[in-house]
Amino acid sequence: MKKLRIAVIPGDGIGKEVIPEGIQALEVAGRKHSVEFEWTYFDWSCETYHQTGRMMPEDGIEQLRQFDAIYLGAVGFPGVPDHISLWGLLLPIRRAFDQYVNLRPVRLFDGVPCPLAGKQPGDIDFYVVRENVEGEYSSIGGIQYEGTEHEVVCQQSLFTRRGTDRILKYAFDLAQSREAKHLSSATKSNGIYHSMPYWDNRVLEMAKHYPEVKVDHFHIDILTANFVRMPEHFDVVVGSNLFGDILSDLGPACTGTIAIAPSANINPEKTYPSMFEPVHGSAPDIAGQNIANPLGTIWAGAMMMQHLGFPAVHDALMQAMETVLKEKQHLTRDMGGVASTQELGAALIRHI
Amino acid sequence: MKKLRIAVIPGDGIGKEVIPEGIQALEVAGRKHSVEFEWTYFDWSCETYHQTGRMMPEDGIEQLRQFDAIYLGAVGFPGVPDHISLWGLLLPIRRAFDQYVNLRPVRLFDGVPCPLAGKQPGDIDFYVVRENVEGEYSSIGGIQYEGTEHEVVCQQSLFTRRGTDRILKYAFDLAQSREAKHLSSATKSNGIYHSMPYWDNRVLEMAKHYPEVKVDHFHIDILTANFVRMPEHFDVVVGSNLFGDILSDLGPACTGTIAIAPSANINPEKTYPSMFEPVHGSAPDIAGQNIANPLGTIWAGAMMMQHLGFPAVHDALMQAMETVLKEKQHLTRDMGGVASTQELGAALIRHI
Ligand SMILES: CC(C)[C@H](C(=O)O)[C@@H](O)C(=O)O
Ligand SMILES: CC(C)[C@H](C(=O)O)[C@@H](O)C(=O)O
Repeated sequence: MKKLRIAVIPGDGIGKEVIPEGIQALEVAGRKHSVEFEWTYFDWSCETYHQTGRMMPEDGIEQLRQFDAIYLGAVGFPGVPDHISLWGLLLPIRRAFDQYVNLRPVRLFDGVPCPLAGKQPGDIDFYVVRENVEGEYSSIGGIQYEGTEHEVVCQQSLFTRRGTDRILKYAFDLAQSREAKHLSSATKSNGIYHSMPYWDNRVLEMAKHYPEVKVDHFHIDILTANFVRMPEHFDVVVGSNLFGDILSDLGPACTGTIAIAPSANINPEKTYPSMFEPVHGSAPDIAGQNIANPLGTIWAGAMMMQHLGFPAVHDALMQAMETVLKEKQHLTRDMGGVASTQELGAALIRHI
Repeated sequence: MKKLRIAVIPGDGIGKEVIPEGIQALEVAGRKHSVEFEWTYFDWSCETYHQTGRMMPEDGIEQLRQFDAIYLGAVGFPGVPDHISLWGLLLPIRRAFDQYVNLRPVRLFDGVPCPLAGKQPGDIDFYVVRENVEGEYSSIGGIQYEGTEHEVVCQQSLFTRRGTDRILKYAFDLAQSREAKHLSSATKSNGIYHSMPYWDNRVLEMAKHYPEVKVDHFHIDILTANFVRMPEHFDVVVGSNLFGDILSDLGPACTGTIAIAPSANINPEKTYPSMFEPVHGSAPDIAGQNIANPLGTIWAGAMMMQHLGFPAVHDALMQAMETVLKEKQHLTRDMGGVASTQELGAALIRHI
């Protein structure tokens, strides 16, 4: 029996409702494959912020360092400005643990109503590989002439050779391992003068090492249009922190619901714990109603097991998810059903 | 007879194919309403760049200054890096003439097959108001340790109080003038630390002057998802240069084709000429085949007439466009038809 030590941060809003479902599903799937879990809970959230003035304690990162992985619900709630809550918890974790890969699968499942006309399950099946620690998400900058009509706000983006090349390498490796061997790069080198032409050059450079991988480049504007027009075109899509963020919400929306989409914040070298969370946020508008879809969190749990070296647990969870979706009996509201969070979670577990 | 002096820059690729259709349609519609045109052609393009090393002559801006408006096809072609071609022509014009509003309507027309399941004409009908001269489109920045593995690329975004407030004011005024009086602001204040929280604050500040306008805020990631999930939610969407760029490609894609979408680069004070162009680019992949859709250019022409104070010409063109789409007899390939660029242009003219 292998025991995994997982740090759990349910966070805010529906984060607290979906994490228990993820944990139960992992428990059940784990038991079938001789994996045990030790869950350690951290109540870090906007509530903590109201009490302590911090999203996590000063030694928060240290506390997390010893775990095999981090399982996170969602962070952010009205009353705490978003840039405070996120720069106080999610973003520092991604950086401290060098989780420079954000891997986000996009797949159209049988059973989920698709907003795009005429698409069949299987038509949409690709990965967004998002750079996760640098780029446009930057706290460098500031404001001058503050409070006057002459205010100027500077916001720096930062791209490094190391940061760019390592995410491109990950994306090319992934593309190389897939049948279609096709990589699409998100850029905006016609409008953003320094960083994006640099990105393009690094893609061309990296491509030389992967002669088998077909590469194409799209400006982010037309790329979002193409997600709607021809999602079947895509296999692996690589983008900067911001572009990857956008594409990994839009992609899942094109498959019916962003609520099933998972987000794996990966440190590929396994020097530090990786973090697994749903793509969706804390959704204050539906929090407390027990209608949140737990599948994004469960899928994130499956990716955690894959990352930690238990593909059988991953596969068991994914099969249960496919079955419960196909059945259509226990779908939550976002997928056109009436099931509660727990009902969907329980139905999935019956299929493990 | 009023005579309008228009500078015409067909540019590259399909720009050269769609501009003649726009001009013919304007000529015909103008004649019916006592408007005459004097077209002055500028062959500035990537071809010029190859010959002269410049996208436009040194005094290009001066040459354009005297015109009532600028009518542009598209710029950019393989062989000239995008950041060279765009920063050598389109972007400097937007800035020199303080065309700080980029107004881009998004509408689902009867006759155009919609990629979103179950949407009817009329369901999608909103405006993207894009900040057009500052923000993320910035040439400030550079590269250090160039050519080494330690390369660092800095890319500055710049937001000013003046630049932010004036685009917000334009967007609020537009929302106020519409039936729904509903403004959605595109932000990413959870990830982008300085500029986006600033943007949010200015929106809140401006909203105080428009008590009748309902305001909501969406992070750009979920906003793109919502364009697919519930496009009928939107009335006026305001965004920074980059976010507006993305949303005004994605929006039209959700209505069936980006090729009908127009882009009005407006200097509202009319101190300088405004510029009208289709949203689509030069499309090297289909250039020279006579299959480009001229409707984006024609709609841009209609917006030009509106701006110049000839709403009757605008309306005549829009009615002709609606009719030719509804008929479905002369649609180009992007809309599921087989008509050539000229056939669609000619069919539209018959309805003016
Ligand atoms: C060509 C490019 C620089 C331009 C932009 O991003 O502004 C285009 O995409 C547009 O939307 O007009
Ligand atoms: C909450 C926010 C900062 C975060 C991000 O943009 O990275 C979220 O949207 C995500 O995609 O994980």
